[in-house]
Amino acid sequence: MNGKNHRSNGGKSSASGGVLLYGRHAAEAAIANKKRIVTGVLCVPENAEMFKALLLRSGREVSLLKVIPKKEIERLLPADAVHQGVVVQAKALENFTLEDVCLLADGQAHCRLLILDQVTDPQNVGAIIRSCAAFGALALVMQDKNSPAESGAMAKASAGTIELVPICRVTNLSRAIDKLKDAGFWVVGMDGYATITLDKMNKSGKIALVMGSEGKGMRRLVEESCDETVRLQTDARVESLNVATAAAIALYEAAKV
Amino acid sequence: MNGKNHRSNGGKSSASGGVLLYGRHAAEAAIANKKRIVTGVLCVPENAEMFKALLLRSGREVSLLKVIPKKEIERLLPADAVHQGVVVQAKALENFTLEDVCLLADGQAHCRLLILDQVTDPQNVGAIIRSCAAFGALALVMQDKNSPAESGAMAKASAGTIELVPICRVTNLSRAIDKLKDAGFWVVGMDGYATITLDKMNKSGKIALVMGSEGKGMRRLVEESCDETVRLQTDARVESLNVATAAAIALYEAAKV
Repeated sequence: MNGKNHRSNGGKSSASGGVLLYGRHAAEAAIANKKRIVTGVLCVPENAEMFKALLLRSGREVSLLKVIPKKEIERLLPADAVHQGVVVQAKALENFTLEDVCLLADGQAHCRLLILDQVTDPQNVGAIIRSCAAFGALALVMQDKNSPAESGAMAKASAGTIELVPICRVTNLSRAIDKLKDAGFWVVGMDGYATITLDKMNKSGKIALVMGSEGKGMRRLVEESCDETVRLQTDARVESLNVATAAAIALYEAAKV
Repeated sequence: MNGKNHRSNGGKSSASGGVLLYGRHAAEAAIANKKRIVTGVLCVPENAEMFKALLLRSGREVSLLKVIPKKEIERLLPADAVHQGVVVQAKALENFTLEDVCLLADGQAHCRLLILDQVTDPQNVGAIIRSCAAFGALALVMQDKNSPAESGAMAKASAGTIELVPICRVTNLSRAIDKLKDAGFWVVGMDGYATITLDKMNKSGKIALVMGSEGKGMRRLVEESCDETVRLQTDARVESLNVATAAAIALYEAAKV
């Protein structure tokens, strides 16, 4: 990092919108993240002491906390939201630009990026963010269009790691891949028909992994932009893995140096 | 396999109960599985031709098919069930006994088993079954008590692979591990505090992987039964991975010979 605020350039993204973050991990991580604008913390009486302490520890105003009954929390959220008695009212995080991401990679001998092509399910994207954090990926790059906006469901599925992983949304993935190549990245696409298996991929230097959606895979133009494609070998009886599972395995394998 | 019907011994399990399997993959796989007792296939008009053909192809009675409106399907299922216009009324699959599992392993030079300790969420267990199928695990062993019964949610999360993976429920996991050791298995527990990393685990012969619940890990007695413990290395900022994600990575790594 070069001291510049890498979340400063939101461009035309949805970054200025509000989000409701629920679940204990997601709420705690949001409060602890100095770059997250928090406008309110609503919790049930049982959680009040914990979140008061957390607000103090994070240098935030304790007056942000409002203790409300469980029923009122439920009224704010989708019916199936596992809220664990807390909702954080916040602004969405600002996106990183591709230039920000290249700056982060600059001077690093080894680093990994994940690029998603048409992965639309917020739960999957959230789970993938968690794997990015677990395996030290530098950032997650998605197409601005066919990717979900930041949401409570995504933050929950990420177990709060959405606060840790830089997210970059681009207009055109093929063009972004070309720019990443110029910045020294070797671009590896995941493709069920590739001849090389994942464990044999090139792992030296800067690697950008590209994953398409479950079933469909990468779009043709995106695939053609890759330097190489690799395959995650699975039993012939199983068509495909869940995209978040496949991404976790790819990030795990790519993290080995 | 030795020709014996490995699903024949249900013991005192919940195997005789009925289940509602929904979602296209789960429904198709259930119909295609000759060992699955199917008592009805309910689908929306748009799906009727497809499921009629599938019933014929699977040698089942076409009279099992009932075409009903979407609303009636929704009435049968939980509110959040993604049914894709089909529900299969079926009997739960019969469980394998530990003896069945040992018979399956008998004479195999290399094979992998997964043992789950206190993993209670049906979605996670379903996702883990999918990874077992994808990476060719011989069977999944769980404790009878603190593990979820077969359900539509589990079958859906498994993307129908619940029809492929032998499931064995035992009363006492530590005792089961001892029996597996006697049958020639090397038992490897996943533990965040282990000194050896996953990729350095012993991979020769018959391997049984043991995973505890997210956060808590294996219970002490179960852990003490293991031959070795290994750690899935993750970034220090990330407490743990989702148990299904960790299982997928462990099964992927263990599948390498």
